[in-house]
Amino acid sequence: MFESANLDHKLDKAVYRREEAKLRETLLNAQYDLKENGRFPVLILIAGVEGAGKGETINLLNEWMDPRHIYTYAFFEPSDEERERPAQWRFWRSLPPKGKVGVFFGAWHTMPIIQRVTGEIDEAEFAHAISEVVRLEKMLCDEGVLLLKYWFHLSKPQQRKRLRQLEKNPDTRWRVTDREWAYYKYYKKFVKVCEPFLRKTSTGEAPWIVVPGANARYRSLTFGRHLLAAMRERLDEKPVKRLPDKNPPLLPTDEKLNVLRALPLDQDMTKAEYERQLEKWQGRLNVLSRDPRFKQISVVGVFEGNDAAGKGGALRRITSALDARCYTNVPVAAPTEEERAQPYLWRFWRHIPRHGRFTFFDRSWYGRVLVERVEGFCSEADWMRAYSEINDFEGAMLRHGVVVVKFWLAISKDEQFRRFKAREKVAFKRFKITAEDWRNRKKWDAYEIAVCDMVDRTSTALAPWTLVEANNKYHARIKVLKTVTHAVEAALEKVGGRAKGKKAKRAAKAAK
Amino acid sequence: MFESANLDHKLDKAVYRREEAKLRETLLNAQYDLKENGRFPVLILIAGVEGAGKGETINLLNEWMDPRHIYTYAFFEPSDEERERPAQWRFWRSLPPKGKVGVFFGAWHTMPIIQRVTGEIDEAEFAHAISEVVRLEKMLCDEGVLLLKYWFHLSKPQQRKRLRQLEKNPDTRWRVTDREWAYYKYYKKFVKVCEPFLRKTSTGEAPWIVVPGANARYRSLTFGRHLLAAMRERLDEKPVKRLPDKNPPLLPTDEKLNVLRALPLDQDMTKAEYERQLEKWQGRLNVLSRDPRFKQISVVGVFEGNDAAGKGGALRRITSALDARCYTNVPVAAPTEEERAQPYLWRFWRHIPRHGRFTFFDRSWYGRVLVERVEGFCSEADWMRAYSEINDFEGAMLRHGVVVVKFWLAISKDEQFRRFKAREKVAFKRFKITAEDWRNRKKWDAYEIAVCDMVDRTSTALAPWTLVEANNKYHARIKVLKTVTHAVEAALEKVGGRAKGKKAKRAAKAAK
Repeated sequence: MFESANLDHKLDKAVYRREEAKLRETLLNAQYDLKENGRFPVLILIAGVEGAGKGETINLLNEWMDPRHIYTYAFFEPSDEERERPAQWRFWRSLPPKGKVGVFFGAWHTMPIIQRVTGEIDEAEFAHAISEVVRLEKMLCDEGVLLLKYWFHLSKPQQRKRLRQLEKNPDTRWRVTDREWAYYKYYKKFVKVCEPFLRKTSTGEAPWIVVPGANARYRSLTFGRHLLAAMRERLDEKPVKRLPDKNPPLLPTDEKLNVLRALPLDQDMTKAEYERQLEKWQGRLNVLSRDPRFKQISVVGVFEGNDAAGKGGALRRITSALDARCYTNVPVAAPTEEERAQPYLWRFWRHIPRHGRFTFFDRSWYGRVLVERVEGFCSEADWMRAYSEINDFEGAMLRHGVVVVKFWLAISKDEQFRRFKAREKVAFKRFKITAEDWRNRKKWDAYEIAVCDMVDRTSTALAPWTLVEANNKYHARIKVLKTVTHAVEAALEKVGGRAKGKKAKRAAKAAK
Repeated sequence: MFESANLDHKLDKAVYRREEAKLRETLLNAQYDLKENGRFPVLILIAGVEGAGKGETINLLNEWMDPRHIYTYAFFEPSDEERERPAQWRFWRSLPPKGKVGVFFGAWHTMPIIQRVTGEIDEAEFAHAISEVVRLEKMLCDEGVLLLKYWFHLSKPQQRKRLRQLEKNPDTRWRVTDREWAYYKYYKKFVKVCEPFLRKTSTGEAPWIVVPGANARYRSLTFGRHLLAAMRERLDEKPVKRLPDKNPPLLPTDEKLNVLRALPLDQDMTKAEYERQLEKWQGRLNVLSRDPRFKQISVVGVFEGNDAAGKGGALRRITSALDARCYTNVPVAAPTEEERAQPYLWRFWRHIPRHGRFTFFDRSWYGRVLVERVEGFCSEADWMRAYSEINDFEGAMLRHGVVVVKFWLAISKDEQFRRFKAREKVAFKRFKITAEDWRNRKKWDAYEIAVCDMVDRTSTALAPWTLVEANNKYHARIKVLKTVTHAVEAALEKVGGRAKGKKAKRAAKAAK
């Protein structure tokens, strides 16, 4: 990757001045066109070798463009806020919205590379990290992000020369510490890790652009011109109405193999029994939420179901067992303007809880493969790829130790009719039934197919769907409450196990 | 993935008969439309649980459709031919051409799943295998293959029932051996491995379709109808002329950072010195090629370069050192009709040598990012994704122990002019110079940029590009010959090292 960047080069000052003036103007124009066009965000990753001018380039970009519409984030050590959430969370919350330019100084590539150089992770884990980066970047590109990845490079002699120069100048001497020289020692190892990383994460849609870093003027113009060309190309493209469909159809759900119809929706539970059970399980959940180990995990609950299936009621029976400071409810309706300007999953990532907390989603990211699919709010290609994107999203949570519980509350079509009618009659429930509910009801079968596909494609060993027979509300509420309690219980035991494992490891180490 | 497939189901015989007759006719029509349309191949992967009707389904498909246009391959233990080549080779040679239907009974998914179930590979290696499958399938879809992946499923009780049924019937008793019952015992473990595999290799373009296998009639109709719908959808699609370009531009190559222009093309070597060196290195290479360890490796040489740079001459100096039975030359010109009907890399995969052999490509797969890019024979999206596809291709060879040597023979523009003119004058060399050569020469600069991008994006630690200063033919030939010899030498030492490592491991095991 670095063959040409390793060559020596320079650029005349007068030429630079002239060219920079031109570049500045056209870049600013492009930025304003982007703002007006508003169809896509630009995300710039800045990476590379120590001393190759990454920081200078970012400063320059903020001079060249209108800094009010550039968001720059440097990712160093994660904060406590960040450490308590999946590793990707901090990148998601910093994504630029459509029409804006985001600059990430270090990003998802940083940790895998450093960990591989220091030997913290082995070849196979490194390969795994690479495939995660590729999946994440593919998703961003599919969501329309113009992702530009710049690698600022220096050869080893160039790096040495650069560090010496910085040291000599009293103004920049502070920038060269022991850390910088330690990096220099690692140069060969570092490049040996970076080269395959860059190669394997270079795709057609998101190739790494290697910028030679030794000469400041040359580097700046090279970077600026490429950025301009990339923005201009995308800005000047005419949107195509219909893309050819590369997705084969899924199996149409059959009455016989319909997990919903196979569900015995009518379950018995008397009010007395319900009250007895409610007290028991709420008490148990409350005790768990106050367990010291609970400070090390978090819980994400997803509530999906037919209209009027009792999602809200089931959810309230959980939250009323909890201290209000330890949970958040996220009702999901149409996305806000801010949310529409971001990749689809952004509005869910932002609500991922810290440790020691619950977040309950009343409707969720599954909207993409349910309502958006059925109503045609997104293209077939979009909801088809959403299954694997959702699995990746939940996988990131699971790996971080987040407990993910997902409920589909199912009622029969007749039961729904009865509930709709009842809601219309009771004044304080009338807000709960709208014309849209009746319209949705007409698409019952299409929704059923979408739900079955969703269950088949996103029910996993660690985050299974729990299908809840909900014609009897008592039964449904207790089943949901029990499932959440069991899931938290199992997670706390694992924390205990992990702690014991760590203790044992430490003891073994000490014994050596 | 298996929620709905685990439900019990059946289908009435009369209904089946009626529906099957309809299906048969429409499927045959679709097959003939595919043949006439000829724009894409259909590749069907058949996988799943033992006893779920995979074989029966393939037989049925060959009854329903015209078997002359279906290619069915079952992949069991690899043959010696196959073992001596990278693992993917046997799939590549079996790919169906455009207009045809290919059926793979077991494919690239089989080994990783089995190896993970038996514990031969760990979680990280499994994850790595998954990412390789995803990359391969993405490439096939990008190349226009309609890839349909069917997973035939049985729940554990269904599998038990099925095996018992087969055993009871004297006609099918032979099909149930101890092996089948051994698989049954592994059921839970097997499914636990398959479920995440299927999930992670399910993409929008190539999702797994889970077919419930317990009832033969139901299974057959489900499979047949899905296949028909998928073929029909693609057949009826109107080709779109221009797709939006999601690929940002690469860096334009600059005179100052041009690896070709940085090359000192004029090198000294007298004829006498050349002849001395030639004898020395040819002798050394010949000895290496007769080394017993050479039977365990193979060599792939790639010769690219400017027109008239002397590729053929350099190549002949290598082959004349070798026994004619141990090498093959593959001159690469315009693809044949058969090759045009296949994914791009197919015509190179077919020539990958067995162990103990050399294959030399006079021009190669790099045509995609050179002539096809410059002449616009393929779209920008195609050559942009080709870099990573080529790296994956060479990566597969390298992992298998193939020695990959790549040469770019570079001459100056003036030197090329002299050689063109000289060729025109000498009668027996006139076939070597055509109008096309003069046309290509006009695009010198565009080719130069393409070569620099190629070197930057595909020169790797294990398969680096060797840039050969070729204004002096003697120097060029010796450099090529020496490089090949050194590469073979290094590989043979590794074989020795590997053998020693294995021996040491065996000894250590025996000592335990």
